[in-house]
Amino acid sequence: MTDRLYLYDTTLRDGQQTQGVQFSSAEKAEIAQMLDQLGVDYIEGGWPGANPTDSDFFASAPTTRATMTAFGMTKRAGRSAENDDVLAAVMDAGTPAVCLVGKTHPFHVREALGITLDENLQNISASVAHLVASGREALFDAEHFFDGYADDPDYALSCLRAALTSGARWIVLCDTNGGTLPAQVGRIVQEVIAAGIPGDRLGIHCHDDTGNAVACTLAAVEAGVRQIQGTLNGLGERCGNASLTTLIPTLLLKEPYRSILRTGVSGEGLGALTRISRRLDEILNRAPLRAAPYVGASAFAHKAGLHASAILKNPATYEHVEPEVVGNARVIPMSNQAGQSNLRARLAEAGIIVERDDPALARILDLVKSREDDGYAYDGAQASFELLALTELGRMKKFFEIDRYRVTVERRKNALGRRITVSEAVVVVRIGDERMLSVSESMDEEGQDRGPVNALSRALAKDLGPYQSHIEDMQLVDFRVRITAGGTDAVTRVIIDSADGQGNRWSTVGVSHNIVDASFEALVDAIRWKLIRDGVTPA
Amino acid sequence: MTDRLYLYDTTLRDGQQTQGVQFSSAEKAEIAQMLDQLGVDYIEGGWPGANPTDSDFFASAPTTRATMTAFGMTKRAGRSAENDDVLAAVMDAGTPAVCLVGKTHPFHVREALGITLDENLQNISASVAHLVASGREALFDAEHFFDGYADDPDYALSCLRAALTSGARWIVLCDTNGGTLPAQVGRIVQEVIAAGIPGDRLGIHCHDDTGNAVACTLAAVEAGVRQIQGTLNGLGERCGNASLTTLIPTLLLKEPYRSILRTGVSGEGLGALTRISRRLDEILNRAPLRAAPYVGASAFAHKAGLHASAILKNPATYEHVEPEVVGNARVIPMSNQAGQSNLRARLAEAGIIVERDDPALARILDLVKSREDDGYAYDGAQASFELLALTELGRMKKFFEIDRYRVTVERRKNALGRRITVSEAVVVVRIGDERMLSVSESMDEEGQDRGPVNALSRALAKDLGPYQSHIEDMQLVDFRVRITAGGTDAVTRVIIDSADGQGNRWSTVGVSHNIVDASFEALVDAIRWKLIRDGVTPA
Repeated sequence: MTDRLYLYDTTLRDGQQTQGVQFSSAEKAEIAQMLDQLGVDYIEGGWPGANPTDSDFFASAPTTRATMTAFGMTKRAGRSAENDDVLAAVMDAGTPAVCLVGKTHPFHVREALGITLDENLQNISASVAHLVASGREALFDAEHFFDGYADDPDYALSCLRAALTSGARWIVLCDTNGGTLPAQVGRIVQEVIAAGIPGDRLGIHCHDDTGNAVACTLAAVEAGVRQIQGTLNGLGERCGNASLTTLIPTLLLKEPYRSILRTGVSGEGLGALTRISRRLDEILNRAPLRAAPYVGASAFAHKAGLHASAILKNPATYEHVEPEVVGNARVIPMSNQAGQSNLRARLAEAGIIVERDDPALARILDLVKSREDDGYAYDGAQASFELLALTELGRMKKFFEIDRYRVTVERRKNALGRRITVSEAVVVVRIGDERMLSVSESMDEEGQDRGPVNALSRALAKDLGPYQSHIEDMQLVDFRVRITAGGTDAVTRVIIDSADGQGNRWSTVGVSHNIVDASFEALVDAIRWKLIRDGVTPA
Repeated sequence: MTDRLYLYDTTLRDGQQTQGVQFSSAEKAEIAQMLDQLGVDYIEGGWPGANPTDSDFFASAPTTRATMTAFGMTKRAGRSAENDDVLAAVMDAGTPAVCLVGKTHPFHVREALGITLDENLQNISASVAHLVASGREALFDAEHFFDGYADDPDYALSCLRAALTSGARWIVLCDTNGGTLPAQVGRIVQEVIAAGIPGDRLGIHCHDDTGNAVACTLAAVEAGVRQIQGTLNGLGERCGNASLTTLIPTLLLKEPYRSILRTGVSGEGLGALTRISRRLDEILNRAPLRAAPYVGASAFAHKAGLHASAILKNPATYEHVEPEVVGNARVIPMSNQAGQSNLRARLAEAGIIVERDDPALARILDLVKSREDDGYAYDGAQASFELLALTELGRMKKFFEIDRYRVTVERRKNALGRRITVSEAVVVVRIGDERMLSVSESMDEEGQDRGPVNALSRALAKDLGPYQSHIEDMQLVDFRVRITAGGTDAVTRVIIDSADGQGNRWSTVGVSHNIVDASFEALVDAIRWKLIRDGVTPA
């Protein structure tokens, strides 16, 4: 007795319209795989032909359960759909579904296209018919539909009918400028359905210009549409698209949706939501929005004293859903008793057992807080967190000491008169009574310079004497930089991911005004953690 | 024929429940003045007695047109309102209005308070009556009202009636856990009004846990409430409160609200909205949310090529309101989806006039595309974009050439045995036939090392011969780093913001595997752009 609701993700197309966002083809492939894991029904991959990255992505797109969809626009006037080169480039991507955007608002037909209203209707019909004749699933994005309907409902509806009778599987009502409010969206969708366009052929596409993208989408679903378009983390043009990250848990967990609708998202997919949201930010090198509904680091953080004490008695007192369901976690301020038991649990997970009443627990909490004030971030650097705890517990082993290091970056002309950059690092380490001196450049196999951090990493790992066999298979696999305050007071945070030959991966953090110094701190932590993990005895 | 809608701001109380936010008393005073300038009706300043900063703030609160309001909770059971010390501390703040939160949900009366339902009703009545008897305007925050009403509507309503009959000016319906959806909020508010609590005595207080705080507030207004509670920038516990920054322009500019309601916010107050929003983030040392409705830096940024070209013909094509009305501005960024008309307009704005059919336009677009594929981003680096265009147009002047540079970062012990880091840069520049050699360290006034980029920046600006007078007042004011691909293939993009003595600010970009090299490229661009802008003739 439930209706199927289809989820259409446009992170890779409309999401890429976010200012400052430009996905590489490899990043698009990774995001497509995350979307598939989440359980969306359609993945809009981009506009082939309009953007070289998008064409590359479709040429080598991953195989997904979700229907891969190319985006384009209806054919232009004065030529056939078959002879429109822009449309041909879209078709050439060879996707099973194609979504074409077209006008439905007379103002735009005249102002932006400069053609007659009839020509526009013909463009819609001919384009959709062309898709269907080519064996593709056809979707029609009715651009500016709500503004168009308010201005001239008959014409706007005739555009939808043109797409429907030409065989479009979905007619998507777009609030392109994001200015329509939820009550209007609900009312207009009801009128569209009453005018004969069935709800199970209708989709909704909203933008967040009034902070109502999610609410408008829900209003449309309540009025009967059965496809929703949105993006992960609400990426998108201007203020963004409706956030699927927010909509999915609401639709799956909350009434009335929970009882009347079903989607392709499983409980497992929902449980991956927080991880997927954070991974996308990681790809974009954006700090995740702490206040994001469901997945934000603060979404289940209870700061008010009255709230925190009630939560300890019963979490339902101040939580509308359970954080675990979306892969998130409850946070209760560190200062109270719950903070210490959280800390003990986190340490125990890392194999570090601490008694309930150990006074080091309070010291560790204070230290984490004061270091986070200085710019450190231990959420994404578990290995550095463990080293900090071990040190505070008096259980840290002393493997080696850094006497000094020096890094040089030089740009000059080589013997052939070509401009080259060379990075070189010298590291002096003391192990017991011995002093070891290493030097390394940072050339890769192609003779290209990889920069100062790479040179430091190599010099550091080159000669660690008795520990050498344990670090030989270590690799620096990722490197992230964030400036944690603006202007000249900027403090640089570096997070380094390391891996070993067995596929283990761990993250460490360093902070300094000097980016090289911050990197070095994280590199040294990475080696120390590996030696601890391998149970190495200090020389 | 319009109804007065009252705006109640709780940035200083519920907004302070945001994770990581703790206002000083001086910051509270500044924010109160901004709120007054904006035109809200009530300023909830904090909970006197519960928080020392809040007591300090009330003791020296600025004089505001808005009604200053203290927050607290209803008296506890087993004592009179007069003898409740927590309530007494709230009264002691001496504010003309007092808002007390109380329970309305049987589950919470039992679970959190551990008293009988009747005792709770008596606590509400006695507390409100005590406020009124003391000559204060009384507000009652009905905590968990929507959950309580869903569970036991009779009891929830009896709590509201207790407050109303005891003389509360406002009964505020709170969706404390943020889990109620807009349609439910609208329906329940209608039922409350039908049950005899007049809409002009009702307020609404929503949280954003499902991304619907704004929509729930609007639904309540449509159903008849005449006070809305919210915070600037949507600060608040967990996912935040309803954002007044978003709600105010919607209520003032958009139908049906515009025609049926009036508020205390003038056109001038609305025009200050963007500045107020950004100033609050500055106080909090947070990067403003680019995608924020109305006030975000991206709220009127048109990245898609089709959008940008239509905006040039008529801004109404892709804007639901005019950015100037809220003190924001339109942005047409460069990106690889921009068309030639967008490009020409962007160049014209920078004073670079190009004919419509100049073949350089296509070359510039191709170059921007291919450089963005390599990791460059011109959205946020307008100055580098202009230099690229000038070069492609054959209009770039050759001021100087970099022969070579060398940067050294060294960490060692100083003469006192203390660990220090020193960065040093040497830059060799050729101007005409002359070779200039500069060296600089990167110590700040406190003798602290600021890293290799700072050293390079100083060395580069130290001796540029005939250009020196033009670059002397230049400063590196911000520095942003992004790794554009993961792992060891990482490419580093650096964006640098520079400023001069007249307060001009410009941004440049550099890309390399080597972070120092990428920074250097952006630094050189910054100087070149300044020389061009100043109309300097090459030596």
